Order: sequence, then C-alpha cells, then structure tokens
Amino acid sequence: MSRVRVHNFSISLDGFATGEGLGLDAPFGHAGGRLHEWMFATRTGNEDLFGRQGGTTGVDDAFTAQWFPRIGAEIMGRGKFGPQTGPWTDLGTDAEWRGWWGENPPFHTPVFVLTHHPRPSLEMEGGTVFHFVDASPERALELAREAAGGLDVRIGGGPTTVREFLAAGLIDHLHLVLVPIVLGRGTRLWDGLEGLEADYAVEAVSSPSGVTHLTLTRRG
Amino acid sequence: MSRVRVHNFSISLDGFATGEGLGLDAPFGHAGGRLHEWMFATRTGNEDLFGRQGGTTGVDDAFTAQWFPRIGAEIMGRGKFGPQTGPWTDLGTDAEWRGWWGENPPFHTPVFVLTHHPRPSLEMEGGTVFHFVDASPERALELAREAAGGLDVRIGGGPTTVREFLAAGLIDHLHLVLVPIVLGRGTRLWDGLEGLEADYAVEAVSSPSGVTHLTLTRRG
Repeated sequence: MSRVRVHNFSISLDGFATGEGLGLDAPFGHAGGRLHEWMFATRTGNEDLFGRQGGTTGVDDAFTAQWFPRIGAEIMGRGKFGPQTGPWTDLGTDAEWRGWWGENPPFHTPVFVLTHHPRPSLEMEGGTVFHFVDASPERALELAREAAGGLDVRIGGGPTTVREFLAAGLIDHLHLVLVPIVLGRGTRLWDGLEGLEADYAVEAVSSPSGVTHLTLTRRG
Repeated sequence: MSRVRVHNFSISLDGFATGEGLGLDAPFGHAGGRLHEWMFATRTGNEDLFGRQGGTTGVDDAFTAQWFPRIGAEIMGRGKFGPQTGPWTDLGTDAEWRGWWGENPPFHTPVFVLTHHPRPSLEMEGGTVFHFVDASPERALELAREAAGGLDVRIGGGPTTVREFLAAGLIDHLHLVLVPIVLGRGTRLWDGLEGLEADYAVEAVSSPSGVTHLTLTRRG
C-alpha cells in the first residue's frame, strides 16, 4: 500500500527545523549547515546526494538511505524550493529560479511545490518535474498519489509543510533526527501537535555521531 | 571539586518539562505522570524514591540512581515545592504546606527553595531542611555550596529554575530525558538558551523503554 513518508527531518533540541533569516545564501538561516552535518558525513549523503566520495556507513547512513526507495512523488513547501515569497513576477529574476539543486535534482520524480502563486511546471534533467500547486494538504496528496503510480509519497519539508500534513493526519512514517544544538529561534515543528504520539509507535536510537533518530510509524 | 548537577529532568519532544494547569492534584498539570513513567518503572525509582519493590535495572535505572551520590544540598523553585503562588499567609492552610514528600523527604540534605515570599525553615525527618530564600541564582548557589560542605549541589527544577541556572552559566552537568510525547503546552526548558551546546560535551543514549537520555557535561 502506498505510504506517506518524511525522512531525515532534522530538528534542534528546542524543536526548530530551520533558523531565522532564510535567504539565498542561507537556506536554513542562522542554523547554517548544523542541522544536517550528520547527513553530510555519511556515504549516502556524500555519494548519492552530493556527488562526493566517502563517508560513514553506520546507523546515520542507514537512515539517510531510507530517503530513496519506493518513492513515486514528493510534496514540498515553497520555502524548501526557494527563498522567495510573494508573486514570482514581483521579484525580478525569481521567476527564473529552478530550485537549489542544479539542473539534475536528486528527486527523479514529480515534485509538487505548495504555493499560493502557481507558475508553469519545470521539467528538469533526470526525471524531476516541479509542479506548482495552490492546494490543501489533502488535495496535494491526491495529486501526488496519482503521479506516484502506486509508489509512496515523500513529504519533503520544510517544517510548516510537515506540521500541516501531521495535523491533517496524513503522515504514515516520520523520521526525525534530533541534533544536539539549541537554535533558539526559527520555525518549530511541534506547534499545534499535542498528543500526536497516540497515533504512532515511536522508536528512538542514538548514534555515536551524537544525533538521535526518532521514527514515528502510524499504528495499524 | 564541587559540581552543580541536574538529574532525571524529563521533557517532552516539544521541550515542555511541565504541562498546564498545575495544582494540588496535578503537580505536572495535564502532563500527569507521563514525563516520569520511565523512572517509576526502575528499581531505583521504586525502592529508593517511592518505597515500593522491584523495577527495571537497565540504563534508565543507572541514570535514575545518579541522582543520589555526592550531593550536599539541593536548590529548587517554589513551583517544585508546592502549587501555591503569592504570599503564603494569603492562602489559608498553605502556610502549613510541608512539600509533596511527606515527613521524610528523599533529599536528606538542606534544600533551598527559591521564593519571593520567605518563611521560616522547615526541619523534616531524615536530614532534609527546607530553607526559603529570595535570592538570585548566584546567591542561592553560594548558600547551597556553604551548606553542602564540599559536596555537589543539585538543581532540582522546575523548568524555570533550571533555565535560569543554565542562562547564568552555573550548571556543570545536565541530564535530560526526552520522553516521546508531544505535550503541546506548559513550561518549556529551552527558551532563551540559544547556543547552549557550545559550552558542553553532549552525549545521547536511547533506552529500550523509548526514552532518550541526554547528558550535557561542561567542557573543562
């Protein structure tokens, strides 16, 4: 059965998944790369996501690699696609923005970008096609499921998008990575999700790297 | 050397160390006992804190037991001592309140209760003496260190007290227990502590019980 999954979603001890001050030079704001250093150090992170060589092959690598298999489509918030806000045409060259990932993004599937300002789809190399849709979580998931052809749908972030899908009861598998830093400000994952654990089996496993992997798997 | 320690300080996934609606029947508000079930299940929790028999003897028990040795005094916030607020005499029988723990509390040392409304000290059975002081974290720690006779000082909570001592740079050892529930509301530990990790070596170890123990040890 097709499942809805979140992977490698990193949060600080105080629950922030991005910092403050997002921009072209700072996709995660003042958090910099600190939330994802654990992933950049893995072999999967290096070789499959960044085209570099080498890396660790322990538990962090095993979780990182779960991002890939059986995914037929991704849904992401506009804030993950790019740092712009508002209508694309108001922002000079922003209408030419094609994402952070170059001409051959790592998705290789349809990707539905949630935005109140739709624009024409972008067909990239390697099978990634960005579709821009103004839709509720439920409707976006319908579109993604159709496009996924029976495979799973990944919810790619950022925190506002993941939180909305959790609040709507649409997530089957949530992999969080607790990073031992205190960000202090930014966007929190947890707001408005009181009692979330009731619907999930929760596992925790700490890694020698210092992060802790939490998996929430929806019950029956 | 005398160190300042926090032990078995339990927080939800979203960083709350108490819930909302604290009162005589609900020392942790709507959190109920959920933040401390992991500890109630250990042998140390049962036998040494609650006078019951039996319990687990794994990693949760090992951490629970760290609460006891080499402590010469405790500092706690008034909210840990009791549910009352304001002047004691305004509140009928509140002036007779002698804490949650009966006539022989588990501290067996001087305990400094931080309050803007001092009252006479309470000498309990078993060596516990509650002193009520209107003092800054620094001054309270001076008093506790004098009373501790070279032993360590425990900061007993609640979250506001722990946070104030952390913000003042006074904590040497912080043991947190991340409990896989989303409380949604209450009092957060982390507010105002951005960058705290810079001063500490952080370890994480997950327990088969589902909680994750985090230890922050101040760098030499």
